[in-house]
Parts: sequence; structure tokens; C-alpha cells
Amino acid sequence: MTEVLYDILGIGNAIVDVVAATDDQFLSRHDMHKGAMRLIDTAQADLLYAAMPPGKESSGGSVANTCAVAAALASRVAYIGQVADDELGRVFRHDITAAGVTFPTPPLIGGAPTARCLILVTPDGQRTMNTFLGACVALDASDVQPNVVAKAAVTYLEGYLFDPPAAQAAFYKAADAAHKAERQIALSLSDAFCVNRHRDAFRRLVAGHVDILFANEAEITALYETGTFEEAANLARHDVALAILTRSEAGSVILRGTETVTVQAQPTKVVDTTGAGDAYAAGFLAGLTQGKTIAECGRMASLAAAEIISHYGARPEKDLRKLVAA
Amino acid sequence: MTEVLYDILGIGNAIVDVVAATDDQFLSRHDMHKGAMRLIDTAQADLLYAAMPPGKESSGGSVANTCAVAAALASRVAYIGQVADDELGRVFRHDITAAGVTFPTPPLIGGAPTARCLILVTPDGQRTMNTFLGACVALDASDVQPNVVAKAAVTYLEGYLFDPPAAQAAFYKAADAAHKAERQIALSLSDAFCVNRHRDAFRRLVAGHVDILFANEAEITALYETGTFEEAANLARHDVALAILTRSEAGSVILRGTETVTVQAQPTKVVDTTGAGDAYAAGFLAGLTQGKTIAECGRMASLAAAEIISHYGARPEKDLRKLVAA
Repeated sequence: MTEVLYDILGIGNAIVDVVAATDDQFLSRHDMHKGAMRLIDTAQADLLYAAMPPGKESSGGSVANTCAVAAALASRVAYIGQVADDELGRVFRHDITAAGVTFPTPPLIGGAPTARCLILVTPDGQRTMNTFLGACVALDASDVQPNVVAKAAVTYLEGYLFDPPAAQAAFYKAADAAHKAERQIALSLSDAFCVNRHRDAFRRLVAGHVDILFANEAEITALYETGTFEEAANLARHDVALAILTRSEAGSVILRGTETVTVQAQPTKVVDTTGAGDAYAAGFLAGLTQGKTIAECGRMASLAAAEIISHYGARPEKDLRKLVAA
Repeated sequence: MTEVLYDILGIGNAIVDVVAATDDQFLSRHDMHKGAMRLIDTAQADLLYAAMPPGKESSGGSVANTCAVAAALASRVAYIGQVADDELGRVFRHDITAAGVTFPTPPLIGGAPTARCLILVTPDGQRTMNTFLGACVALDASDVQPNVVAKAAVTYLEGYLFDPPAAQAAFYKAADAAHKAERQIALSLSDAFCVNRHRDAFRRLVAGHVDILFANEAEITALYETGTFEEAANLARHDVALAILTRSEAGSVILRGTETVTVQAQPTKVVDTTGAGDAYAAGFLAGLTQGKTIAECGRMASLAAAEIISHYGARPEKDLRKLVAA
């Protein structure tokens, strides 16, 4: 059996966030669903950027955020994602590398620019995201090396990656390589609208290839087209070995076979929820690959999420190892 | 006489900040003077960026920060500065325009990239800056239109602009145009090391062409090569119509002819001092051009500086008009 070199290998959309504070009227004026992610093309990105307030740039991308947080929690982490050979691509590479994550994917030369996500944060701390995928659409199965997947205890896939079509093939290739090497596949459903766009593909992936599933209430009910959380949770329990279902301030529920563990959310002042789910997954996967109990994994997950929502931006500012140890 | 279209016209280095949290050991290892600004070339910028932690990008530049803060205080503001035709140049243009500042300078095509400043913030909130000037060195006298200067009540010049050599000529051209139109010239000395590099040129400019001078204690004593603040303050009193001298948490002293006004600093929690002096100048100039008394200008200056140092980044996050009104 191949040696485990990484606790977590993430595969996701490599994105630079542009975060600005705004109000609810701005969201309505630009037809946004508060709290959701929508895809925008170059023309829409230009128009929206021109209309939005001054921003702050920082590296983002859902699974990339998870990787950075997990590295801050002492996990060994690698990341596969597509940036362009441009200034924002260099910013993304610097930030994820400086966070301690191995990032082997070479930049895309001569294609679309590095992806960016225009994020509007309202006074209630909610983030509403507008993603221009740019270079991310070039990620395909050739970017996934089976020998790298075989070296990772868990390969973590981002649901958002179902939007760029070539990435779905990359997912199946990664799942195949992981299971051949007796490793695990984790998936985040990312966003209820994303699940609705790709429900059948998600159902097939979850039922046949996923070991660990992360979803919030809206995403899991969208996946199973059920009206209640309980019904959806029961279906998830049968589809995957481990389902981690988050319910914002109501905490989270972890299902493993017949076992059910409930985890409280950490009380904290909400400044910006960008990256809360990503940090939660990081805490959980870091704990899991470090051999913690499910309840301990849930506690690490909640602590990491609480740190992230207490400030602007999706990457940690405080020493997470100390926070977890305390 | 030409109509006043702008309260403030700023001329400065157009820079994107890359801010990262670090410790004192990192500064010593890389030979930095804590709290100072040093110029670095492309090779040094690459090396330092590779060594520093993950960053957050936001528009900066000393006088550009002042312009953004003054616009937030309801002043009519324009800005002259040189960015390149690249991604960071577009970020800079978006941010200053979205802040409400008119920015007429076209981007530099085919030259150096947009300037960036690698800023290390230590746990005490002090910022230490490493500036790669890039496109800024292309700013010259041809970028200053006398008819634009004539429309601004105060033209505010950044001391840092004495580093790129062609910009000094732009300063003299601006000063000439301003005084012909019976407008005022304000100058910030920017940094004691910058004053030491260009002392003679600064002395000539201050004595012959500046009406309003901003400096902190280290800068004013460096300008006049005196050991005491009092001695330097007396020399400044004779050189300029209005000298505004800041002393960090000890507040500031404003000298006008024989008059002396002392202003208390606003007590606040220091997170990041980047842009504190810039915001101070913004509050003062906004008050001055809105016809406030010198003491009221000092109070607006202190309030604006306190808001900026209470968070990461050099541009305002709270509604400054409300803060000043309260």
C-alpha cells in the first residue's frame, strides 16, 4: 500500500475573493439571492465590479479555504485547482503555499484569467457570492494524478466543481484512484442552487463514490428533494458512511451507520460568514485524519468555523492550534 | 478666477497594499526598520513575497488613502497617480473611483506593473512597509494638468513621491499652477527615511512652495536636523502658513502664525496603524476646506485616524460622516 503523504488532498475552484460591505438594497437591485452563489460571465463581472463599493482581495475558493484551515490545524495538505499565469494567480499560489499547503497544479497559460468571486457582505454578516470561473473551467481529469490521490488519506471534492463540466470527469477519476488505494472520498455539496443545477450527477456521485458527505440543511433537502431535514438526513445515512450535516447557529448533526452525534455551534459575534462551512469541514477532516472521535471532530469543526466568521475573509487570522488546544 | 470643482486634489504613488500579520523576528531576519518604509526592487519584492505569510490585498498609497477618507467625509476629491494596465491597476482604479474620487490619470501601457507595498503588521499594530514602485516611476510633469490644479482648493502632495525622480518636477509644476490660481499647496513629509534621502529638495519645497505641512515628530526633526521637537516646530512655524505636527498617542500640535492649537488623540484599540497619518490628513483637510476652525479640523483628523487604526487596512470601514457628526 502507498504511504500516506497527505491527510487531505483538496480539489476545487481556485478563486480570489473580492469582498465589499454593502446593504440589502444593493442585492435586490442586482437580482441576487442573499447567501447564495451565482455564476457570472465576463460582461456581468465587469458590470457588477463597476457598481460595487471598494473591495479587499484575498485568496478564496471553498475547498482551498478548507485546505488552508486544515494546514493551520497541523494537517498535511495538498490542493489541486486551476489558476492562470497572471497577478491574481500568483496571489492565490503565494497564499495557499504560505499557508503550508502543497499546490502542484501548474498555471494555465494563454487562457482565461484567474477566477474571482465578487462577495457582498451585508450588515447581518451574510455573504452573497458572484463567481466568474475564468481559468477554473480548464481543470480536467488530466490535472488529477492517481499516484497523488493514492497518497492522501482523504480526497475532498468541492460541489461547486460540478459547474465547470470537465471537472466532473476529474472527480470520477479521483474517486476511482482513491478507492483503488483504499482511501476515502469526501464531498461538500457547496450550495443548494448548485445541487439543483446538477442533482442527478450529485445523486450518482454520492450514492456510488462518496464516503464522507458535508452539507447544510438547504443542500441536503435539495439533494433528496425532501421537505424535511429528518427525511433527508435518513436518506444520507444510507448513502454514505459518514454524513456531516450543518444547521448554522443550531449546530450540526453527524450520522455514522446507526450512530447520531449532535454538536453545538460555538457562540461568536458574526462579522462575515464567508468560509464558515469551509472551515467547519477543515476542522472535521483534520480531527478525523488525526484519529479523533466523531464528537471531537465536531468540536474542532465548530471552533474553526467560529474563528472564521468572527472577521472578514475566509482564511484564519488566529492561531487555530492554540484555539483547539485551549 | 476658475471655479473650485474639488476641495482636494491629491498627487501620489498609486499602490496596492499586500498586508500580512507577522512577528518582530521576521522583521529582523529581513533587515527592516519597524514602522518605516523602504524601497525594494523586483528581485527583493519576489524574495520577500515568497517568504511572507498569506496576505490580503487592498488599495493603498499614502495620498490615495487620504483622498478616499476625505471623500468619505463628503469632500469633493480628485487624485493623480500612475497605475499600469494590469489586474492590480484595475483594482486600484475601481477602489478609488468607488470611494467617490475622480481619477483621471490613464494607465501606463507596456511599462512596469502596478506598484505594490508589502506591509508586515506586528502584534503591536505597527506596520513596516516594503514598496516596489513599479509604474509609479513613470509619473512626471506631463501628468499634472494646470487647469485641474486650478480647480482644487488644496493640492495635496505626498512626500514619498520624491523617490521616483520625475515626480519632483510634477510637484513644482503643481505648486506653480496652484499659486497662480490663488490655491493652496499641502505636503506630507511621509517618512523620516524619505526626508533624509531628499532633505535639501524637501527644504527648498517647504520654504518656497508649501502652505500647509503635515509631519510627525521624526519627520519634522529630520527635515530641520534638530534634536528637539520644539526647535523643529518653531522652524516649521516660520516656513509655512499652517504646520500640523502629529505625535502618535500624544496627539497633535497645529501651528498657524503665532497661534498654537493642541489636539488630543482619540483613545482606540490599535489593530493596524497603516494609513493612520493619511486618515489624519484627510480629516484635517476635509474640515479646512469645509470652513471649520483649526481645532475642529484637528478633531475630525483624530476621529478619522482612530477609525483607520481600529481595523486592518488603510481605507475606512465605518461611516465617517456619522462618526464626525456624533
